[in-house]
Amino acid sequence: MTTIGGRRVPFEDLCRALERCLYPRGFARERARRCARIVAENSLVGVASHGLNRFPRFLEWIERGWVDPCGTPERVATFGSLERWDGHLGPGPLNAETCMDRATKLAETHGVGVVALRNTNHWMRAGTYAWQAADAGFVGICFTNTEPNLPPWGSSEPKLGNNPLAVAIPRSNGRHVLFDGAMSQFSYGALETAARRNESLPVPGGFGRDGEITDDPAEILASKRALPIGFWKGAGLSLVMDLLAAVLSAGRSTCELGTQDGEYGVSQVFTAFGPRLIGPLGAERIEATLTDLEAAGDDTSVRYPGERLCMVRERNLREGVPVDEAIWEEVRGLASG
Amino acid sequence: MTTIGGRRVPFEDLCRALERCLYPRGFARERARRCARIVAENSLVGVASHGLNRFPRFLEWIERGWVDPCGTPERVATFGSLERWDGHLGPGPLNAETCMDRATKLAETHGVGVVALRNTNHWMRAGTYAWQAADAGFVGICFTNTEPNLPPWGSSEPKLGNNPLAVAIPRSNGRHVLFDGAMSQFSYGALETAARRNESLPVPGGFGRDGEITDDPAEILASKRALPIGFWKGAGLSLVMDLLAAVLSAGRSTCELGTQDGEYGVSQVFTAFGPRLIGPLGAERIEATLTDLEAAGDDTSVRYPGERLCMVRERNLREGVPVDEAIWEEVRGLASG
Repeated sequence: MTTIGGRRVPFEDLCRALERCLYPRGFARERARRCARIVAENSLVGVASHGLNRFPRFLEWIERGWVDPCGTPERVATFGSLERWDGHLGPGPLNAETCMDRATKLAETHGVGVVALRNTNHWMRAGTYAWQAADAGFVGICFTNTEPNLPPWGSSEPKLGNNPLAVAIPRSNGRHVLFDGAMSQFSYGALETAARRNESLPVPGGFGRDGEITDDPAEILASKRALPIGFWKGAGLSLVMDLLAAVLSAGRSTCELGTQDGEYGVSQVFTAFGPRLIGPLGAERIEATLTDLEAAGDDTSVRYPGERLCMVRERNLREGVPVDEAIWEEVRGLASG
Repeated sequence: MTTIGGRRVPFEDLCRALERCLYPRGFARERARRCARIVAENSLVGVASHGLNRFPRFLEWIERGWVDPCGTPERVATFGSLERWDGHLGPGPLNAETCMDRATKLAETHGVGVVALRNTNHWMRAGTYAWQAADAGFVGICFTNTEPNLPPWGSSEPKLGNNPLAVAIPRSNGRHVLFDGAMSQFSYGALETAARRNESLPVPGGFGRDGEITDDPAEILASKRALPIGFWKGAGLSLVMDLLAAVLSAGRSTCELGTQDGEYGVSQVFTAFGPRLIGPLGAERIEATLTDLEAAGDDTSVRYPGERLCMVRERNLREGVPVDEAIWEEVRGLASG
């Protein structure tokens, strides 16, 4: 997001103005201060779409009762290094800040800490909380789901969320590495900012009302059919995965692998979440989501990731595994015993 | 990857042929059997590019000494629910299988288990190990780094790895959800398969030798300039993040949020990895990677994710935060106290 030339406001003035909107809306003094700072900081770092520009909507949601100014997060289950919390529909930024703080405490004890938070609200900017962890010296990863606003591949119906993800890798100079991106090429905040300025997007960002790919943000906002991520977001994601793998394993990074005569000695990360976490309710949720997803297309146009694999596997077990004749003969020539 | 019509081989025959290549190359019987099955299974599920078709190269790497048939992974550090292992340059598929198994054991005890593995080798297909976790009832996430084979955004020099990532969400019917994707739109395996068949890609996948975006896989293999992920990969990633957030938090999924009158009560996940894990060596690695990355462009064309944020923040603290005049006045009107 570039910023327009024009009016600038000192950071502390911005904080105070936001704070003063929160007092009369049921926020205790300290909570108003924390919440206002998080929102103002988003404008400060150049993401006004998730800062000041989103604040009127935040206030509106309080008035509608979707955000409870007094709601605070509560721990509802503990699984060792992972805890489940309920956000009680409190303000998203406050709930998120509390839960990332808790995740770092868990990580201090267990090496890794995960807090899964339900029943919370829009947190404004994903990067805020990953950055918070990095400022405390931790690798921070967080993501959220959203309402459906992105069509599955092969469909024009919004069934997926754009589910922002943030990954921060701390640096001792405080200039942390931060991947912060929604799963759409442009976040709705970014689309709104561009539309407000009558700017077109730097690359095509979604489908317009006529179903054609377009760089017109207003068209995409109208169709609710953004394109999934790619371009610099794919590149950014690649970088943070490399850093995570190398740092967590104390192993070689991609740039070190590039100095070798071949690709060996790589770094990998394996993560598992215990089955106790899922339970019958979780299993039901998964099925409901997949059913809903497939309803977005005709018989075969929308598939969940992995669906094709099972079908191919069954067919190949039955009919044999397709092989490239030349490679098959080569491998047979290399066999012995 | 579609498969060509033509020769099909029974799965067990394929396993045996691969196995018989491994015995004379220093693999103990049981290890040859496990390794051959993992590779054959990749062809079985329709990903021959990471199965049979990659096997001759795997054998070549053994002969070059890059893969040690007798190398086994060893735990080198423990941080509670996270362990660090050294792969001793053993066969990637065997090391990976062992480490994902260990991650599930850790998750049984701690709710979440992470194994970070260094000094290992190409694991063939990321999805194998996430699926392994899902088969055992766990949510499985794994990723690897690779040699540099993807240019950062704004550069034509390969500095990033395509770093495959797999996320599996278990289903009781065994037809798990599996996101399995490299951070390039097409994996090198997929590009090689398409090039071998003289097929063009379904969407543009990278830059050709002349610097233009192309759907010719041979051109992209020659330039080593693949495009980062997007299209169906972004959509798939979005789905698995939603399922993770909803299942881990026992909270609402995107499809449930879509039935509400507004976007409230969302689900989020916060993860932190302890600072002890990084240490001075990790910090050095991060700096070396960023330095290397920026060398891929001129002064400002290549930035690491988050770099701009710090610059903007400093400028805005100094000069004031740019505000949209209308919104600023609106918010000031909403303030009181």
